Amino acid sequence: MPLNMVIPPRSTSLYSAITAKIDQKTKPLGSLGQLEHLAMQIALCQNTLTPCLQQPCLMVFAGDHGIAAEGVSAYPATVTAQMVNNFISGGAAINVFARQHNLELIIVDAGVQSDLAAHPSLINAKIAYGTQNFLQQAAMTAEQCQQALQHGADLVLRQYASGCNCVGFGEMGIGNSSSAALLMHCITGHPLADCVGRGTGLNDTQLLNKLSILQQARAKYPHVYHPLDILSTFGGFEIAMQVGAMAKAASLGMLLMIDGFITSSALLIAHQLQPHILDYCVFSHVANERGHRALLQFLNVKPVLQLDLRLGEGSGVALAFPLVQSAVLFLNEMASFSEAGVDG
Amino acid sequence: MPLNMVIPPRSTSLYSAITAKIDQKTKPLGSLGQLEHLAMQIALCQNTLTPCLQQPCLMVFAGDHGIAAEGVSAYPATVTAQMVNNFISGGAAINVFARQHNLELIIVDAGVQSDLAAHPSLINAKIAYGTQNFLQQAAMTAEQCQQALQHGADLVLRQYASGCNCVGFGEMGIGNSSSAALLMHCITGHPLADCVGRGTGLNDTQLLNKLSILQQARAKYPHVYHPLDILSTFGGFEIAMQVGAMAKAASLGMLLMIDGFITSSALLIAHQLQPHILDYCVFSHVANERGHRALLQFLNVKPVLQLDLRLGEGSGVALAFPLVQSAVLFLNEMASFSEAGVDG
Repeated sequence: MPLNMVIPPRSTSLYSAITAKIDQKTKPLGSLGQLEHLAMQIALCQNTLTPCLQQPCLMVFAGDHGIAAEGVSAYPATVTAQMVNNFISGGAAINVFARQHNLELIIVDAGVQSDLAAHPSLINAKIAYGTQNFLQQAAMTAEQCQQALQHGADLVLRQYASGCNCVGFGEMGIGNSSSAALLMHCITGHPLADCVGRGTGLNDTQLLNKLSILQQARAKYPHVYHPLDILSTFGGFEIAMQVGAMAKAASLGMLLMIDGFITSSALLIAHQLQPHILDYCVFSHVANERGHRALLQFLNVKPVLQLDLRLGEGSGVALAFPLVQSAVLFLNEMASFSEAGVDG
Repeated sequence: MPLNMVIPPRSTSLYSAITAKIDQKTKPLGSLGQLEHLAMQIALCQNTLTPCLQQPCLMVFAGDHGIAAEGVSAYPATVTAQMVNNFISGGAAINVFARQHNLELIIVDAGVQSDLAAHPSLINAKIAYGTQNFLQQAAMTAEQCQQALQHGADLVLRQYASGCNCVGFGEMGIGNSSSAALLMHCITGHPLADCVGRGTGLNDTQLLNKLSILQQARAKYPHVYHPLDILSTFGGFEIAMQVGAMAKAASLGMLLMIDGFITSSALLIAHQLQPHILDYCVFSHVANERGHRALLQFLNVKPVLQLDLRLGEGSGVALAFPLVQSAVLFLNEMASFSEAGVDG
């Protein structure tokens, strides 16, 4: 089981040397703001004064959700498979942004409810044809959950072995903001109403219906406490696969880029099991989905972007990527005061 | 005088068609947040459903300030010229970020206090060897101010003629956050104390000294009301040249990218004279300099980035550029629901 691995805290032995390098750059102290924190984080993760982002990739996990049958989404479940096909054809937002920034895009069928045509750009890691409706039974079995974790870990290991040291996470799955809301509620203890948002665009009535259904679902499983039990009861295959992939990536010392609300809920689970995973995570943005800001506050982390995005797919990761790259580049390429002959 | 030109409001005739194009993309309505507003703005500015950013450039205007002699900056005035040389050598933050995003970087000596060696990468548009100390007399004469406006306009026209339709603005000038604070105070009416910040990094004592000096300076010129009089009394050559360049760029229908506090103070002047200039402006970030957030609120505009930057040089423009590019790309490249066969 991939979560038996141990994620160590990053070494801080270079902290002083990295600080000195940043502070000797030709700029007022601290004037690159959050980019300086990112540069420090990445340099510490890689334990070097000259970090780099090698073969960055973005893994988008797709899965369907039994709970979608209850009308918790503005879109029908068939849209999950349709959007996966859109990813493969290159027409989705994430394709546009990944192309813009030369990010390798890896699309994973973690549990879409229909058979998808084989395609070189699609990884078939299907656990089942969608999860069960957790209003009736747990979304997945413990075995399915373990299988999803392992698949996620294996996929990341493959990227790592090919030279990648920076992996972004995204997802697609009609209904998965319901799973994320329950995961957040169970882990953070925030009231469910504060964790449930409009997802793809529910109106007020639909939002109340979603909340009511999730309250009923929550009441069915009063004794679910362990993060992996929470995950298998309320999660999705794409979320579980993200959890395994994230834990593996951090254990390998890779930099993790986290997308919006659903991807962050996966990180919440991984963080419960492996608290040091945060050392390796960049939070690309705060989404315009109720719950996400509070989730990031629970983790005490600061997002890179605040653009009112609520698309998923890893789109926030791709959009934040050039800023993360900028942090690495200024550390490596800017002249120091002495090199440039500037009075510091 | 370039500010006698008229900047028309952008046409809104395509508003409905652009809205329809955005809303038919394969994503939940509004889910790309601020990028959708940017896409709309750029498409309206260019009056097309297929906008593009052609040969984007970044103009960095440098100048010295007589007021620097009063100790209002953490750095000596000699740093202005040293940093210009750093720009030319490619070692500054703005060089790193402009290279990253293939932005043409144009360095302009608007009024550095020393002679700079001629260099192919440096445009000599020097009005004088720094402004006068406005604690004693107006920073520049009305004629110098006009000359700076005209030089700025001419430089933008040259870029436009070579095919550029997107221009970012940056600046370098020890002491220029003092000018910007006075410009903001005079235009917005905000108390001077709310407009004066730490600039390159003043401590508490130095900040109080800066405020005291600027209060004395303000009291010397109680009857300065017209934006151009405010500019010539308290401004800098690099700020005045930005004003002329900005007005010319908007009059040509170019997209303007505005950097931090000082560049925004130039835009404040231009906006007083030509209110429709805002239609053409993207505000790249809100800086971690007292006054900037309130300045943006005065203009009722929303910045793209919130990264606690306070460097200037146009660094925020360069960092925000890929997001502006993303807005254009999603509008042009994403598939519609019907094209992708996705249920909308």
